[in-house]
Amino acid sequence: MSGSTYGKLFTITTWGESHGKALGVVVDGCPAGIPLSEEEIQSFLNRRKPGQSRYTTKRNEDDMVEILSGVFEGRTTGTPISMTVFNKDQHSKDYSEIASCYRPGHADYGFDAKYGFRDYRGGGRSSGRETIGRVAAGAIAVKILKSLGVQVHAYAEEIGGIRCETFNLSLCMENPFYMPDLAAAAKVQTAVEKQMARQDSMGGIIACQVTGMPVGIGEPVFEKLDANLSKALFSIGAVKGVEIGDGFSVAKTSGSENNDPFLPPDLEGGPLKKASNHAGGILGGLSDGSDIFIRAAVKPTPSIAKEQQTVTKTGRPVAISIRGRHDPLIVPRAVVVVEAMTAITLVDMLFAGMTANMADVCRFFGRSPEDSNIPENH
Amino acid sequence: MSGSTYGKLFTITTWGESHGKALGVVVDGCPAGIPLSEEEIQSFLNRRKPGQSRYTTKRNEDDMVEILSGVFEGRTTGTPISMTVFNKDQHSKDYSEIASCYRPGHADYGFDAKYGFRDYRGGGRSSGRETIGRVAAGAIAVKILKSLGVQVHAYAEEIGGIRCETFNLSLCMENPFYMPDLAAAAKVQTAVEKQMARQDSMGGIIACQVTGMPVGIGEPVFEKLDANLSKALFSIGAVKGVEIGDGFSVAKTSGSENNDPFLPPDLEGGPLKKASNHAGGILGGLSDGSDIFIRAAVKPTPSIAKEQQTVTKTGRPVAISIRGRHDPLIVPRAVVVVEAMTAITLVDMLFAGMTANMADVCRFFGRSPEDSNIPENH
Amino acid sequence: MSGSTYGKLFTITTWGESHGKALGVVVDGCPAGIPLSEEEIQSFLNRRKPGQSRYTTKRNEDDMVEILSGVFEGRTTGTPISMTVFNKDQHSKDYSEIASCYRPGHADYGFDAKYGFRDYRGGGRSSGRETIGRVAAGAIAVKILKSLGVQVHAYAEEIGGIRCETFNLSLCMENPFYMPDLAAAAKVQTAVEKQMARQDSMGGIIACQVTGMPVGIGEPVFEKLDANLSKALFSIGAVKGVEIGDGFSVAKTSGSENNDPFLPPDLEGGPLKKASNHAGGILGGLSDGSDIFIRAAVKPTPSIAKEQQTVTKTGRPVAISIRGRHDPLIVPRAVVVVEAMTAITLVDMLFAGMTANMADVCRFFGRSPEDSNIPENH
Amino acid sequence: MSGSTYGKLFTITTWGESHGKALGVVVDGCPAGIPLSEEEIQSFLNRRKPGQSRYTTKRNEDDMVEILSGVFEGRTTGTPISMTVFNKDQHSKDYSEIASCYRPGHADYGFDAKYGFRDYRGGGRSSGRETIGRVAAGAIAVKILKSLGVQVHAYAEEIGGIRCETFNLSLCMENPFYMPDLAAAAKVQTAVEKQMARQDSMGGIIACQVTGMPVGIGEPVFEKLDANLSKALFSIGAVKGVEIGDGFSVAKTSGSENNDPFLPPDLEGGPLKKASNHAGGILGGLSDGSDIFIRAAVKPTPSIAKEQQTVTKTGRPVAISIRGRHDPLIVPRAVVVVEAMTAITLVDMLFAGMTANMADVCRFFGRSPEDSNIPENH
Repeated sequence: MSGSTYGKLFTITTWGESHGKALGVVVDGCPAGIPLSEEEIQSFLNRRKPGQSRYTTKRNEDDMVEILSGVFEGRTTGTPISMTVFNKDQHSKDYSEIASCYRPGHADYGFDAKYGFRDYRGGGRSSGRETIGRVAAGAIAVKILKSLGVQVHAYAEEIGGIRCETFNLSLCMENPFYMPDLAAAAKVQTAVEKQMARQDSMGGIIACQVTGMPVGIGEPVFEKLDANLSKALFSIGAVKGVEIGDGFSVAKTSGSENNDPFLPPDLEGGPLKKASNHAGGILGGLSDGSDIFIRAAVKPTPSIAKEQQTVTKTGRPVAISIRGRHDPLIVPRAVVVVEAMTAITLVDMLFAGMTANMADVCRFFGRSPEDSNIPENH
Repeated sequence: MSGSTYGKLFTITTWGESHGKALGVVVDGCPAGIPLSEEEIQSFLNRRKPGQSRYTTKRNEDDMVEILSGVFEGRTTGTPISMTVFNKDQHSKDYSEIASCYRPGHADYGFDAKYGFRDYRGGGRSSGRETIGRVAAGAIAVKILKSLGVQVHAYAEEIGGIRCETFNLSLCMENPFYMPDLAAAAKVQTAVEKQMARQDSMGGIIACQVTGMPVGIGEPVFEKLDANLSKALFSIGAVKGVEIGDGFSVAKTSGSENNDPFLPPDLEGGPLKKASNHAGGILGGLSDGSDIFIRAAVKPTPSIAKEQQTVTKTGRPVAISIRGRHDPLIVPRAVVVVEAMTAITLVDMLFAGMTANMADVCRFFGRSPEDSNIPENH
Repeated sequence: MSGSTYGKLFTITTWGESHGKALGVVVDGCPAGIPLSEEEIQSFLNRRKPGQSRYTTKRNEDDMVEILSGVFEGRTTGTPISMTVFNKDQHSKDYSEIASCYRPGHADYGFDAKYGFRDYRGGGRSSGRETIGRVAAGAIAVKILKSLGVQVHAYAEEIGGIRCETFNLSLCMENPFYMPDLAAAAKVQTAVEKQMARQDSMGGIIACQVTGMPVGIGEPVFEKLDANLSKALFSIGAVKGVEIGDGFSVAKTSGSENNDPFLPPDLEGGPLKKASNHAGGILGGLSDGSDIFIRAAVKPTPSIAKEQQTVTKTGRPVAISIRGRHDPLIVPRAVVVVEAMTAITLVDMLFAGMTANMADVCRFFGRSPEDSNIPENH
Repeated sequence: MSGSTYGKLFTITTWGESHGKALGVVVDGCPAGIPLSEEEIQSFLNRRKPGQSRYTTKRNEDDMVEILSGVFEGRTTGTPISMTVFNKDQHSKDYSEIASCYRPGHADYGFDAKYGFRDYRGGGRSSGRETIGRVAAGAIAVKILKSLGVQVHAYAEEIGGIRCETFNLSLCMENPFYMPDLAAAAKVQTAVEKQMARQDSMGGIIACQVTGMPVGIGEPVFEKLDANLSKALFSIGAVKGVEIGDGFSVAKTSGSENNDPFLPPDLEGGPLKKASNHAGGILGGLSDGSDIFIRAAVKPTPSIAKEQQTVTKTGRPVAISIRGRHDPLIVPRAVVVVEAMTAITLVDMLFAGMTANMADVCRFFGRSPEDSNIPENH
């Protein structure tokens, strides 16, 4: 079944393999009239680009994006926006040796079982390069959110067990790990060097903060905001866990500790405030007006040079050492992917929420609710 | 936007409020020819029924299910299966007092902001009773899975910080908490009594084990098996976190520790085995043939008699003590809901996987792949 | 695959068989705050009710609808609206004789081939009674459209080759055929009597007029307004053709004749007018502001008492005479079904159109387009 | 809302404008293992290519297709197939003059009203060039159908009121109008010359024949086979009517004439035959094993040099004569588009039908229905 399209109203369809001719995305359902340039998209892609530091793959790709449709005279037209990045630096030979066996921690075996064979070059479709399309689309989503007063910021909260102790988003761009705490980043640097020396890899936790969300976004009962956010993050290859707010720690608290007391609004008629935010900005699947906090656990890069035991396609035991050019940790480059998937999901849910109340729908179409005998509620 | 339908090929549409006339579900896309009786559905509903023990709400509901369509001469016909449970014991007056304010930890505020007003009786649509439809549908999904050799078992892994030390699924039915460890269950019993005395509540962790899944189920790149399972569990009201396999602990390990080495199959041509299962049975979004382990963090019941601070609809501070008849912990009754949502998702994904390989599709329609010049791969 | 849910944002899920316990529909994505009563739904159902005249089936059903969820204190809550009609007058024995063979013009053979067996009582799921759910949902859609200034009126344009010569919608309720021309209706009456005497049936053409549609509704390129309207009408059992505006006659005209010249608006800034309306109110899949005219060809009732040749399930030739209680023509009762499916589709497309323009989206969320650097266009 | 993706399991997402950098399509859900080359796609595109005869636009485009993903070592991999055609011969200036007014018979006005502005170059997204993506995808669908024994053939049945009297599909390629009757084609040639001299255009009817369809394809009640086919054809810009089988003429017949008597199968257990095929191969929304006949009415090309009255964007009356390079009739080039959309829909519906019967599903997953207590029915 088709599985490369995400979203209901604002949709993205990604395509392309690690070592194919190109990769790309078609963004559909984007409103018309948004000023958009290739530079804006590129600035996002540069955050996931390989070769940014010695802690990421040495693969040398500019990942220059081209907008092929959907933008006219510098503005979106409301029609599909097709964006493409052509592959350049493909050392397919690096992968030939592993074509005949299954890399531990990878989807190779699943792909062969599912499709009968696979494009074994650099993981083909299951390569991290597939996220290029997500990030390009995310750049547009982030821009839409900004125009609605919503801000999305992802960052590395923990790497190799080293957690940020302080939180200053502006520092994320000042260290190769996108951490909001330079002291933690320094410790991580030492730890990564060690792992690289061991020809091994490490994982971490990426967090995302959303500010300015309107209240009541999310569609009961299956299209809950947190349900879709968690699907969005779990659709990223290496994610093995997702938390909203206090996440797993809620299992150990009591109702009286975990419930966030509501406080009066700052301005009459304004959004309510909460004395705490254990819920992470989402209650019953709907945004509650507080900042949204979502967290994803990212596993260590499975591709390591260190020798591993596995089997060949014919089931014969074999030891492999994956050469290629792999990131000792993918957390830093995955940060912008988490930000992109979060933003795309928020745009889709905000759009989905526009038909919740008939009085608002009447006004949208230039009708007075009273004339239509629709009672006001707010 | 409509949000009460779940699934793509095998879909469920739930409806109904806590204190409305009835609740129900329409199951569509169910294959024809499956023997099905109301008794089979009822046995699942009884696992989430209120009043099973003194640790669950005193609300007295039989929750007797009626099949209104889609079954003829004892077998499913392939047409929509409509199942309904009529509400009986509704003490709406219990809720009148909280109609005018927002319960902490609940979606009340979000519902009012979204829809302009809400059915305040017992949480209306956001009540746990909505899951009746999910469980009834889950009973059918579990039956489909059984006929395909797939078994799904959910259980309470941890409650109020007390974890199971031993694992014996058959013991789940022998304690009111559905825990596979009677010693842990005994400790939980004492802890719950304490919380009840404090008019407070507690949370926990529900785990689900899936055995017998074919390899390669899941649709790259957005309809990954884990992505859909996580959405399914996060769509359950009180869930705040989801993990697959080692979950968040992967953030602290190394690639060499976290990768599961593949082992030769028991029988030539059989599924590969793995030396470990840190991945929890899913790699790159596809089932890998090992048991699937998924885990959901459930928050403490937000409805507690203990006094809490909140505000009225007009924003005035107020202290409330929620009377009603609430579970001191919802984990036990949520176990079967987790099992149901997992099973529904697995059926949908298994069906979605049937078109992955052209040779298989040819055979399904009675054609020889060779005649159609389609190469065999497996 | 599930096929009983229709619509993307405003969805209906119908269920039930002709001789099952009940039939019904779940309407999801209906905005909150709409005053709604069972009487309003019933008035629509009464238009398709059996036994309205001697020209429709003698089956005696009140078809009383019950609203089971989604309405609180007389208004829609934004949650799923479940509506049910219980079957009463079921003469299942009437059908026993045809259980073993395939009725010509019916889906019996297809159902057996698809599902392996079928509920043969009165056509089961393929019975016209399935449309009860559509009509109940249509009543809600018509109400939403009214509040947005859109009116939908279906009528019988032609029956048994007899066409309406005059057009006065108010007359539709004054004749058993829902024709806007009483003279034509009188001729039809004579013709139907003849067919009934011959134990035969007749077909006709149902037309639907939509007034007050905003301009630009429809989603290029696959969710065109006419594409969805045509799917909606073709999803009604007996429909074999659909036309928009001049329909098939456009094949014989020239561009200069078929193009509708645009005229200046009545009021500055108001919608443009057209000198003609060959396009039937839809250009390039988008509403053009003129009245929408859509037309559906309905085949003669396939169930006739007149003897017909067919085969048994085992392929043996047999002659059958279908007794049961069938309409000599279904056009009159199908008129309200066409109106319902048209209204449901229009609501869904109107909602889908709300995200087309970023400036409008900004305003919806209380933002000024200028502040967000979004240019005005209109 | 996104509207550029079509299909549920086998999906196509088209993108691109008439005068943008490129146009293309992403085909997702295509089974793995299908041998596929750019030449096969190109042979389909050549049938809709401009400049094939003096009766089609003089625009000079090779429309060379490039496959950018989803094919490895000559076979489909099961991942998205991205295909692109770059625009070359774009005389944008041709269109500058009509940027400021609304062309009669076109979607210009609707686009401006919907999106606030439009890409006015050659119709932008509403240009016939959008169908390039559909045809490229259709080439793959036709190949899948062939491997399942299903053949699809579209042809021009009538042009400018001149109907084919004889039917020989092999002749379609021997005349510029793709008509199965050379005598009719000759008459059409004279008629077109006349219209061209008048700077006017003409329309016609495109028919499509499907042979070899399995019985029972189509999903009750909304995803009926004919409902989806009609949506598919109505999604093609100039289509104003669709018929299945006898179409509108059924409105004038009687049940006894219109019902197709079933006949015993040729081989025991084989598909039933019918004495006639008024139904056009579809009964109750399911394929009945007979050939499927579907018909689409195509309006005359709205772009004509002949002077027409219209208004400017500001509502001022103006006379325009559309220069550009337009087809005097688009029927010939639309034939392959109808074939493509039909094929894409059939593949999607065939796939959707694979889960109808539990016994078949069990076998697909290598289980014996008996072992699973699933009764056989066929």
